[in-house]
Amino acid sequence: MTRLSTSLCDLLGTRLPIIQAPMAGGITARALVAAASQAGALGSFGFAYTQPEAMAGDVQAVRALTDAPINLNFFVNDAPPPVAPETQHAAIDALTRYYQSLGLPAPAPVRAPYAPDLNAQLSMAEDLTPAVVTFHLGDLPAERLKRMRERGIKTGGSATCVEEARHLEASGVDFIIAQGAEAGGHRGSYLRNPYEAMTGTLALTRLIVRAVNIPVVAAGGIMDGAGIAAVLALGAQGAQLGTAFIPCVESGAPAVHKQYLLAAREDTTMVTEKFSGKPARGLANRFMREMNDNNAPQLVFPAQNTLTGALRVASAKAGNPDFVSMWAGQAAPLAREMTTAQLVATLEQETLEALDRLAALRR
Amino acid sequence: MTRLSTSLCDLLGTRLPIIQAPMAGGITARALVAAASQAGALGSFGFAYTQPEAMAGDVQAVRALTDAPINLNFFVNDAPPPVAPETQHAAIDALTRYYQSLGLPAPAPVRAPYAPDLNAQLSMAEDLTPAVVTFHLGDLPAERLKRMRERGIKTGGSATCVEEARHLEASGVDFIIAQGAEAGGHRGSYLRNPYEAMTGTLALTRLIVRAVNIPVVAAGGIMDGAGIAAVLALGAQGAQLGTAFIPCVESGAPAVHKQYLLAAREDTTMVTEKFSGKPARGLANRFMREMNDNNAPQLVFPAQNTLTGALRVASAKAGNPDFVSMWAGQAAPLAREMTTAQLVATLEQETLEALDRLAALRR
Repeated sequence: MTRLSTSLCDLLGTRLPIIQAPMAGGITARALVAAASQAGALGSFGFAYTQPEAMAGDVQAVRALTDAPINLNFFVNDAPPPVAPETQHAAIDALTRYYQSLGLPAPAPVRAPYAPDLNAQLSMAEDLTPAVVTFHLGDLPAERLKRMRERGIKTGGSATCVEEARHLEASGVDFIIAQGAEAGGHRGSYLRNPYEAMTGTLALTRLIVRAVNIPVVAAGGIMDGAGIAAVLALGAQGAQLGTAFIPCVESGAPAVHKQYLLAAREDTTMVTEKFSGKPARGLANRFMREMNDNNAPQLVFPAQNTLTGALRVASAKAGNPDFVSMWAGQAAPLAREMTTAQLVATLEQETLEALDRLAALRR
Repeated sequence: MTRLSTSLCDLLGTRLPIIQAPMAGGITARALVAAASQAGALGSFGFAYTQPEAMAGDVQAVRALTDAPINLNFFVNDAPPPVAPETQHAAIDALTRYYQSLGLPAPAPVRAPYAPDLNAQLSMAEDLTPAVVTFHLGDLPAERLKRMRERGIKTGGSATCVEEARHLEASGVDFIIAQGAEAGGHRGSYLRNPYEAMTGTLALTRLIVRAVNIPVVAAGGIMDGAGIAAVLALGAQGAQLGTAFIPCVESGAPAVHKQYLLAAREDTTMVTEKFSGKPARGLANRFMREMNDNNAPQLVFPAQNTLTGALRVASAKAGNPDFVSMWAGQAAPLAREMTTAQLVATLEQETLEALDRLAALRR
């Protein structure tokens, strides 16, 4: 039987050159990660907001289901200083009418620390020793990467421009994730202004493949085997897909997120900082449009994420899309509802078919 | 010898599924169009600002050099009403210090008509009967497309979203150009807000291929054979490349445009309306940054293009990049200096090599 394989498979120990993208906030549920890895892709936890003890529970649960490689992903973000009371009040005022529209009181001021301690997370990751650790929004110290390498953990970092990719390569990562502008979720930019580093996946992948000497994994707008074949044609050694996995049966995305994603017929995504404090792409909804249009006051990342948390949860619970962060990439209309195993098998089959179609173009 | 061929080659009568993108304002010089077509691609004139008599001269000149198919491209834009004097004064005031910095007087108010008459252009195109006519920024009446079809002219229109592609298909064009957000030059959006229709080439091509039943040509960020192979993998039947041809020896781009394009090492492009009145992507320079940052007053398209004309010409002549519209796509750093014939041959060879590399991924 014909199989699809690249150097990334050898590097990560996966059957397929496909990464199920880490998506924080509960989307990358244990069942999703386990099923993706078991099916031959690299299942990934989005641990941006997860405390070390909870990480351990998640990893152990997946290990009870599969021996296949998994990936743990972190946000590299300096802990922001405590937010001044006036700033909190302004940001709370901007959200109060939305909270009230769901019958909820205005949110309480957020208290530091706003996010789990990154060093504690990374030390737990070393203890858990997954096959792969990836990170977003920054770089990691060379000594941290070295320690992971000594434990046999492969590391990858996100780049949204050539400079970030070169920087990551020099720091010692094993591979680069080229995050094109199509990608859903948080922009990984950390050396350039995120709004000036909105290069499309096709252009960015090729630019980064030409600029570095380590494997590149393309991300952004890839939803099927044709998309995977396309980035392999660009010289990427693999593809990372997030949005494609959101509607999967095992995904932890709220039902309303899955429903609106499956209903998309056009690229109606937009980028907003108003949910978390950092720019991220998702399906446009009332909250994103109004908060962007009003340039509403917001807290620094990830304090804003905490401040909007109860609003997002309540909106999702009510089946109301207005205040849910429905992260999605620009090819959202290609989303399909199936099990994770079916999706991975379909992606493999479609990629092989795309390669067959390409071979037939030579005459 | 192995050749690369798709249904687009059969449709357009070209040897290769490659379109040298039309670029108005003198870039697509006669020598460039002739050399691109002679080499097996589809050479294209950007006739947005060209009067019918000048079109005839250009086409006859190319026909003296090659019998190969050529394409004439037009901007579909309703003639704007005459601009009010106050509006003219504000727009002129915003430009005066730039004109003065080059030792030039402030520009005179612009007089309607601001652009050649589209119907006169299209009637001349019918008389000239090129193999292909493409258009940008709108659609053409079905009867016009029918008349062209009866004369054996194949027609193609630009889409920046699914809705525009479906609309073009219904109007009777022979193929769609999917213009991804990476693309240099003017955004072709005409049914959606151009800033909300900035879908990356990878996502957009796949969305449009899935939405229509006629051939799709992908445009935006494609600079080499790997990029061509990538869009073929997405199901496109061809690729349109503009930026790649700008540094060619035969291109009519100003020397300073070629020079800064070849020096690009990162995607430093941005989108501005300030040169022409409609959003277009090019290498960021002083004019674009300052005029965007100040949200400077501007005239409607294409009156603004006329108002900035002498500034752009003088800046280019002085070898000063500050006020030149250096249109370029997001993969600008992949630009190469060669003859047009060398570029087309290189693109063909690289595409075949990319297909070979892909075939080797199956094991």
